[in-house]
Amino acid sequence: MSTFGPQIEVAIARVRADIALLHGELVRNALVVWTGGNVSGRVPGADLFVIKPSGVDYADLAPENMILCDLDGQVILGTPGSDRSPSSDTAAHAYVYRHMPDVGGVVHTHSTYATAWAARSEAIPCVITAMADEFGGPVPVGPFAIIGDDSIGRGIVETLTGHRSRAVLMANHGPFTIGKDARDAVKAAVMVEDVARTVHLARTGGPLVAIPQSAVDSLFDRYQNVYGQAPQGELQ
Amino acid sequence: MSTFGPQIEVAIARVRADIALLHGELVRNALVVWTGGNVSGRVPGADLFVIKPSGVDYADLAPENMILCDLDGQVILGTPGSDRSPSSDTAAHAYVYRHMPDVGGVVHTHSTYATAWAARSEAIPCVITAMADEFGGPVPVGPFAIIGDDSIGRGIVETLTGHRSRAVLMANHGPFTIGKDARDAVKAAVMVEDVARTVHLARTGGPLVAIPQSAVDSLFDRYQNVYGQAPQGELQ
Amino acid sequence: MSTFGPQIEVAIARVRADIALLHGELVRNALVVWTGGNVSGRVPGADLFVIKPSGVDYADLAPENMILCDLDGQVILGTPGSDRSPSSDTAAHAYVYRHMPDVGGVVHTHSTYATAWAARSEAIPCVITAMADEFGGPVPVGPFAIIGDDSIGRGIVETLTGHRSRAVLMANHGPFTIGKDARDAVKAAVMVEDVARTVHLARTGGPLVAIPQSAVDSLFDRYQNVYGQAPQGELQ
Amino acid sequence: MSTFGPQIEVAIARVRADIALLHGELVRNALVVWTGGNVSGRVPGADLFVIKPSGVDYADLAPENMILCDLDGQVILGTPGSDRSPSSDTAAHAYVYRHMPDVGGVVHTHSTYATAWAARSEAIPCVITAMADEFGGPVPVGPFAIIGDDSIGRGIVETLTGHRSRAVLMANHGPFTIGKDARDAVKAAVMVEDVARTVHLARTGGPLVAIPQSAVDSLFDRYQNVYGQAPQGELQ
Repeated sequence: MSTFGPQIEVAIARVRADIALLHGELVRNALVVWTGGNVSGRVPGADLFVIKPSGVDYADLAPENMILCDLDGQVILGTPGSDRSPSSDTAAHAYVYRHMPDVGGVVHTHSTYATAWAARSEAIPCVITAMADEFGGPVPVGPFAIIGDDSIGRGIVETLTGHRSRAVLMANHGPFTIGKDARDAVKAAVMVEDVARTVHLARTGGPLVAIPQSAVDSLFDRYQNVYGQAPQGELQ
Repeated sequence: MSTFGPQIEVAIARVRADIALLHGELVRNALVVWTGGNVSGRVPGADLFVIKPSGVDYADLAPENMILCDLDGQVILGTPGSDRSPSSDTAAHAYVYRHMPDVGGVVHTHSTYATAWAARSEAIPCVITAMADEFGGPVPVGPFAIIGDDSIGRGIVETLTGHRSRAVLMANHGPFTIGKDARDAVKAAVMVEDVARTVHLARTGGPLVAIPQSAVDSLFDRYQNVYGQAPQGELQ
Repeated sequence: MSTFGPQIEVAIARVRADIALLHGELVRNALVVWTGGNVSGRVPGADLFVIKPSGVDYADLAPENMILCDLDGQVILGTPGSDRSPSSDTAAHAYVYRHMPDVGGVVHTHSTYATAWAARSEAIPCVITAMADEFGGPVPVGPFAIIGDDSIGRGIVETLTGHRSRAVLMANHGPFTIGKDARDAVKAAVMVEDVARTVHLARTGGPLVAIPQSAVDSLFDRYQNVYGQAPQGELQ
Repeated sequence: MSTFGPQIEVAIARVRADIALLHGELVRNALVVWTGGNVSGRVPGADLFVIKPSGVDYADLAPENMILCDLDGQVILGTPGSDRSPSSDTAAHAYVYRHMPDVGGVVHTHSTYATAWAARSEAIPCVITAMADEFGGPVPVGPFAIIGDDSIGRGIVETLTGHRSRAVLMANHGPFTIGKDARDAVKAAVMVEDVARTVHLARTGGPLVAIPQSAVDSLFDRYQNVYGQAPQGELQ
């Protein structure tokens, strides 16, 4: 029955449980409506990842409904949930895992304020220290790309490779975020909406004041290395 | 006692339960305040629909309080709930069911952002892919019409017949949405508020970038035929 | 012990329970923060009203903590809750009850959007049908008045006497609403925030389209006489 | 085991419980996302304060996880929670306690609207009576300062010493608030976001109307001395 050996099966079970729970954070943080949005997580030690099924209620997202895929985005037949279709964004997640080996989690939402910046193809300028902490500068815009081939995944990878930001605003579409694991990518999804909202509102009230680049650098460096109870290594 | 035969009675009971539950989605998605808003659903196989009573608390919306009407909007006497007045928008719902045979559900709200566009008699431009997916282009505006005759129902039907959108912004009033069943119409009500909000906010920040028409067409086609666990056929 | 006779004591107990519960609606509808806002209700058949204590947590608003006052705003000594100070807006509520005999409930909040219009001393124009239904036209602005004498109460009474609206935006302060009973005044507080928000957002997106006066009149007339399960008579 | 004597240990236990609970108010009032924000409270009768650990989930904030520090911001070793790192803003809190002996609580958040004013380095003008009540005039802006030395604490103290406001908007960063105890500082954090939001929205709709200075003074005086069930003395 099991095809991956006991150690990998344990890892798969853990990622299934994490991914199911983390979708709850999208709801709690009001990043999604209806069945929109998706979280995926790489299975440590295997060329596999776990992702949400397509168009399913958030109330039905139990671990056994999550779908196991290989890095080409193909569903692993005979595993729990494999009778369902995976998220329609599965190809984009798979592309990221194939091309960014340090990425352990990917999140996509249409969260309101981040998507509003995306509808203008405009990067979010770095004018608050929380943004310097979390993203190390502006949150960049990715190309316009539609579902159906690798263009979304390629747009994410080309924009974020070598960039401090773990978030990209795909033009006319919405944010994709990456992280060292799924929880870290969810955090980035929460934070990109938070800074998108704050900077949007700040600018509707008048001219923004820039943060000096040296301060941005210093804040990013400290936050990545000192904040929290354990080091939260930057994805390079 | 029963006037419709056992098969129709089962169908009525199912629609009553659905309609009662679906009003909860209006609350959860913050589309309504106080007793505003209403959902109705056609009874499959009969010239009947079920709708919410007028001006009743959302906490009191049990299945037996829902009201059964014929397609002229007349309450079916002697059925549960028939001692109450149906929603004051019942005539508009009835008009839609009479003139759009493929419509199985109708929703009306005064959700904030959709109503804000309606107060300007302005269609929502299609600048985000979620909107192309769901509505296939702009969300149109319907005529100004007040309660008291068929003018609201006629405005909805004239605007949406032959249109990809399942949502219409009735001028100075608010959104009405249709769907293949009540749940599909509720989804459209949730999504029209979501895109109304995102596009409003996007435009307050600067010029919007349009999506090429060919991409809008391709997104709409894919979403209607591929997304989700079962085909979500476009109306008509 | 009881000073008002059994019939009035029953009425007092009912109003205490209503007022305690209705404060929950202010919280559920996000009209208040911390200990702000207050609801009062006239005791039918007596020159008395019940109001919230000053600066007390919303979680502590049990019926026995509500405070019974005469129409001069004086606490009735020896009754439950009379060891506490009543709301600092008690004098304004009392003034309204003294001068508007048909008013059975008064509500005051600093709800965000209504207060934003008040900070500009600007009436809310009637551009959505829900507003014509509920308020019969624009929501008016009252004078700037500060706590310490009868000027707030007088401003409310002078603005709302003979006016269709049950809500007034006191300049630089916030909304006060009246109703045939406390629940009706709470509904007006919910609705004035809802229309304040929708019309604010509508106008930030471009020019508003007016509703013809004849349609406003017709909507107001219908809503006051037809909507709901029982007639919701206009004040006076 | 205990190093402070029974009376101080009781005081520490009470402050631990308060601080753990008060973090819940930050969540309930939507002032924080993810693990952001922090509350601290001075231990009465000792040169100690209690603060939140760094980067820990709001769901994990039990009293025994709170961290006890001296007024230099050093963790008191061997006490509960001392195996964790305290909030990365601990040095700023400590600086305030050292230099403002009447301050019993400090709160820091990145609440949306207050941070939006901070991103423009703009004080919030006093145009609503709730703001005159609570802050006695405009909410001031503090200098741009980054974490790593005493510059944040010094900016808070220099801005708020001798000022009526218990809130300061640190430039490009967010609000810090002080109070006679932790609960009072949390109230100030709730109220500064509320007035930041209301005044922001008011101004996007058109010109604001100022409150006469004499009225501001009179409102502030009354609120500090009369409102509520017990005097809420102004700091210093």
